[in-house]
Amino acid sequence: MNIALIGAGNVGWHLAQALQAGGHTVTAVYSRTAAPREELTRLLPQAQPISSLNLQSINAEVVLLAVPDAALAAVAAALQVKPGTLVAHTSGSQPLAILAAVAGARTGVFYPLQTFSKTKAVDFWQVPILLEATDDETLQQLQALAQSISNSAEAVASGARKQLHLAAVFACNFTNHLLGISRQLLQEASLPHHLLQPLIRETIAKAMQQHPYTVQTGPAVRHDQNVLDEHLYMLQRHPELQELYRLLTQSIQATAAAQ
Amino acid sequence: MNIALIGAGNVGWHLAQALQAGGHTVTAVYSRTAAPREELTRLLPQAQPISSLNLQSINAEVVLLAVPDAALAAVAAALQVKPGTLVAHTSGSQPLAILAAVAGARTGVFYPLQTFSKTKAVDFWQVPILLEATDDETLQQLQALAQSISNSAEAVASGARKQLHLAAVFACNFTNHLLGISRQLLQEASLPHHLLQPLIRETIAKAMQQHPYTVQTGPAVRHDQNVLDEHLYMLQRHPELQELYRLLTQSIQATAAAQ
Repeated sequence: MNIALIGAGNVGWHLAQALQAGGHTVTAVYSRTAAPREELTRLLPQAQPISSLNLQSINAEVVLLAVPDAALAAVAAALQVKPGTLVAHTSGSQPLAILAAVAGARTGVFYPLQTFSKTKAVDFWQVPILLEATDDETLQQLQALAQSISNSAEAVASGARKQLHLAAVFACNFTNHLLGISRQLLQEASLPHHLLQPLIRETIAKAMQQHPYTVQTGPAVRHDQNVLDEHLYMLQRHPELQELYRLLTQSIQATAAAQ
Repeated sequence: MNIALIGAGNVGWHLAQALQAGGHTVTAVYSRTAAPREELTRLLPQAQPISSLNLQSINAEVVLLAVPDAALAAVAAALQVKPGTLVAHTSGSQPLAILAAVAGARTGVFYPLQTFSKTKAVDFWQVPILLEATDDETLQQLQALAQSISNSAEAVASGARKQLHLAAVFACNFTNHLLGISRQLLQEASLPHHLLQPLIRETIAKAMQQHPYTVQTGPAVRHDQNVLDEHLYMLQRHPELQELYRLLTQSIQATAAAQ
């Protein structure tokens, strides 16, 4: 397929390369500022960098929108495509209906459920792609596209996708932040961060095998008040971490009590 | 070495089997109630289950205490050993000095930095063991013991070990809880939990390679207020999760602002 990509951020960066590796042709890359589209099209021999959202003269049956959620409505309103073009966005949190503004297009969602950074390679075959479309034919087309770059493609409606995105914020964004806090605490004691890596690996391996609530360990679930008090005392120079510690402890205890 | 184990909970369970596999002999297992010591000694051919903390007639050069932190002071006060016995506790948060109460013993700390559940096997060779002792000879003895069951043994003083334990609560206990919340949110939308596994694996792999603060993604760090508001709205039936979401979002934003 000939595909135009709107957005050259973290998602667009990896998606474009996966599409190319999957045998598709990325014919154009749009970004608001010049540098990202120039940088990405250097990796895509047949793609031209474009600075306009009027794509009526671009050779593309599919247009994928990989722009920040907050920009999606404005981009959809400004986008112009040939009649019958398949336009899909890649957002976990935005509804399919946000693309209703694109005149003459068939619309869908093509959401790769993964965290992307330009600096780290991603095996796209392992990335679940969640799909939605206004009609069955469009859905089948998106399914074929997804299956050409990933082992896992599933139709998920907007409501469920939103809930999945919320769950992903807890599992990914918030978890990453806690790992960052833990690394900061090690740094403050001049301890090497590799010391905690086996523990982190085991925590995740265990949480994949069993429901995490059933394997919760640590001072909170044991109601070990001496340790809890001491930890809060140790965090006195970080009042915001103290509050986080207190709230997470309460939440663990409330969850255990409800089991 | 001949080793007596005080405590047959999650830590004692795995430690006893690692020591036996490392060529040592566990000669006795104490637990407060009968069932845990009976269960564990069935796996240790030369160990007797014991119900008294008077170990003066037990054949053991080393006594390892794997009891809950909250019980450690009372167990140390009640423990009686032959003069010169090496007594070490396995706690991340308790000071070496808590063992000063054990009359006639040389004392140390033997802290395996890992999360243990009886239901899940652990490769002890990958578990860092953090050591501390009142004198160099005792430290060397603990080092030899640790190196016979793990690839990673390091001397860490009480203060640094406490900070490490605090960091581990964030990296392990709190992270596990967030993964539990995420699984609960998937269940509420009847979504299969395997959908999030590639994302969780990638999040952790990335956090091991780079400082997590530098690879933070998601609506909080992007200040994507529409998504943040919607997520808070979606959590309205879980006010405690709403509060957690709000506080973690604030913490991510404050951290990013301080970078």
